[in-house]
Amino acid sequence: MTHDDEGGISLEQRGAVLLIGLDRPRKLNGFTPTMLRELAAAYSELERREDIRVGVLHAAGPHTTAGLDLPKIAPLMERGEALMPPGEIDPFDFARQRSKPIVAAVKGICYTIGIELMLAADIVVAAEDCRFAQLEVKRNLMPTGGATIRITERAGYGNAMYLMLTGMEIGAADALRMGLVQEVVKAGEELARAVALAQLISAQAPAAVRATRRNALLALEQGPRAAVAEFESVQQRLLAMEDGREAVASFVEKRPPRFTGR
Amino acid sequence: MTHDDEGGISLEQRGAVLLIGLDRPRKLNGFTPTMLRELAAAYSELERREDIRVGVLHAAGPHTTAGLDLPKIAPLMERGEALMPPGEIDPFDFARQRSKPIVAAVKGICYTIGIELMLAADIVVAAEDCRFAQLEVKRNLMPTGGATIRITERAGYGNAMYLMLTGMEIGAADALRMGLVQEVVKAGEELARAVALAQLISAQAPAAVRATRRNALLALEQGPRAAVAEFESVQQRLLAMEDGREAVASFVEKRPPRFTGR
Amino acid sequence: MTHDDEGGISLEQRGAVLLIGLDRPRKLNGFTPTMLRELAAAYSELERREDIRVGVLHAAGPHTTAGLDLPKIAPLMERGEALMPPGEIDPFDFARQRSKPIVAAVKGICYTIGIELMLAADIVVAAEDCRFAQLEVKRNLMPTGGATIRITERAGYGNAMYLMLTGMEIGAADALRMGLVQEVVKAGEELARAVALAQLISAQAPAAVRATRRNALLALEQGPRAAVAEFESVQQRLLAMEDGREAVASFVEKRPPRFTGR
Repeated sequence: MTHDDEGGISLEQRGAVLLIGLDRPRKLNGFTPTMLRELAAAYSELERREDIRVGVLHAAGPHTTAGLDLPKIAPLMERGEALMPPGEIDPFDFARQRSKPIVAAVKGICYTIGIELMLAADIVVAAEDCRFAQLEVKRNLMPTGGATIRITERAGYGNAMYLMLTGMEIGAADALRMGLVQEVVKAGEELARAVALAQLISAQAPAAVRATRRNALLALEQGPRAAVAEFESVQQRLLAMEDGREAVASFVEKRPPRFTGR
Repeated sequence: MTHDDEGGISLEQRGAVLLIGLDRPRKLNGFTPTMLRELAAAYSELERREDIRVGVLHAAGPHTTAGLDLPKIAPLMERGEALMPPGEIDPFDFARQRSKPIVAAVKGICYTIGIELMLAADIVVAAEDCRFAQLEVKRNLMPTGGATIRITERAGYGNAMYLMLTGMEIGAADALRMGLVQEVVKAGEELARAVALAQLISAQAPAAVRATRRNALLALEQGPRAAVAEFESVQQRLLAMEDGREAVASFVEKRPPRFTGR
Repeated sequence: MTHDDEGGISLEQRGAVLLIGLDRPRKLNGFTPTMLRELAAAYSELERREDIRVGVLHAAGPHTTAGLDLPKIAPLMERGEALMPPGEIDPFDFARQRSKPIVAAVKGICYTIGIELMLAADIVVAAEDCRFAQLEVKRNLMPTGGATIRITERAGYGNAMYLMLTGMEIGAADALRMGLVQEVVKAGEELARAVALAQLISAQAPAAVRATRRNALLALEQGPRAAVAEFESVQQRLLAMEDGREAVASFVEKRPPRFTGR
């Protein structure tokens, strides 16, 4: 079995940004058990590495992914095994273990798990050649990587049913209108733009980035009151940090801040 | 009292799709008690019929509906009676009794209950001549057919207040931007397009369609965790069905699948 | 200390509409403790005045606000004091004390608390020169005026993170697409349009306006079932009011209704 049969996940560091690449381009990055395992390991590395602040999820070749490689994945599903290995950070982020933001760059075919991973990231940059489809209804399956929750949350119930009950493709402009992606760029520019956004985020105060992300997720999952309830304690914690003084000092000294997360 | 005075609901079967038509065109399909009763009966028939997988809600004449025929409906409201008869499937779908999806085709005037019924359906195709308005504030009433919940969910709170506090009309393009409708087509083409989408859905695995719809509604109503909690049990049930094997077989044999719901 | 140093809040009545103006234009309406205190007092006056039905939040000069005047506000924050004085109606509306709707008119620079106050209002009219940014991550702060909740609710999680994790500016067209604003008009026309919308709302039945607003907020904060649960009791209360009879009478007499709120 060659590497190309099972594919893998590439890793590349650029400053405080970790690029995480789906790497099985000759098979349209169809997900194998190996790729799922390596993806979870990559997300764990993103979480663990102190020199990394933001991840970028991207793909080798002209397409994001055609979805799960079902002949390789189905036995796992039939045994009721989790697609992602336990003990690592879950890339679908159901348990909210991840504290660092991820920007996804998508392009070409971006089916099923491709959509679900991009929505489990935080921000999505889409190439204008994107083709999004949630194909599970064609296979007597339900999307269980978060599409039922996150397409509904971002695009609204009507658009969610439009995508998930028909299995039809939509393009980048429709995905932008629906709130599924945040920017549409020329094909070929999506990775550079995603990295630029990730670098921009990595230049902000990291504790504030994490707190803001977590509070928005809290509002989504437990309602506005739960989010309001932690405002004061979070803000007091942030105000007591060195990075607050650095923000003031850099402003006074007219220079970019150098945040440390302390 | 002729039929035209009270109007009614038309039914037409096309393959696995049931067309449910508002039929009082000379009165702009203003809803009478008869129409409400027949509409609930039609939704019950959609649910009960094993040869039907998807409904299409549409309207006779150039307009969807001017809303409730208040002189005929007000006595019912003043007695605090439910607009929809008990014992039938509620077209407003508050109790989530319905398991089959509905595509709504709307056009021309689509006021109050017209918006509420289209949002209680799953997917909406709008003619470009649509005029949407939620007029209750002009009558010292609150919308109680779901507008306060579903416009807010899909369009966001700001757009919901824009519509519901002013009573103003918006058009099809605005409704598309807000996520209230999924496609805008030329006037006259909305029914054909809605039927085409319904047929497309009816060709997908019906158990997967029902499970996907139900899980998205669960996420909306009880939060993401409740939706995630049922992922594994639902997927295992789907994986054990004949339709899963049919999906694989049809793929291998390069032919369209013939799903049975078993 | 002159008034211009501390700024203030202007008040102007136009019929049943109260204009509430941020008034420190030489400092880009940067919020001082005085302005926060006067803003809360203005919202309390809006709530208390029986001759006023709708508020309009606007700003003097070419910009909405550059945000908090941190040198003046930071001491307050570091002592953990609420930005808004207790005992008045909270303009951020976390406790839902306010019963009357507000239309916000925004223009030019509209940063941080400017976005949060516009989203705590009900409807937003934006000038096409708007520049929106949520800058807290640059200062090791979390937005605690509602941005984490309300940008997420209206624009979806992806767009919310796009704004709040990067600190980037977006314009009026993007804000419209995301559902953060409801109308975009030429610069200079935003206040007149906001007042026109407020007057339109003030001509509707005021009890119905309040009930509709409250029910949509209930759905957002406690879920669809809580909203449905109050439908019948609210509608019966509205049906028993004089304004319902006025709606019918004005319709029969082909004249505009004169609602009294009784």
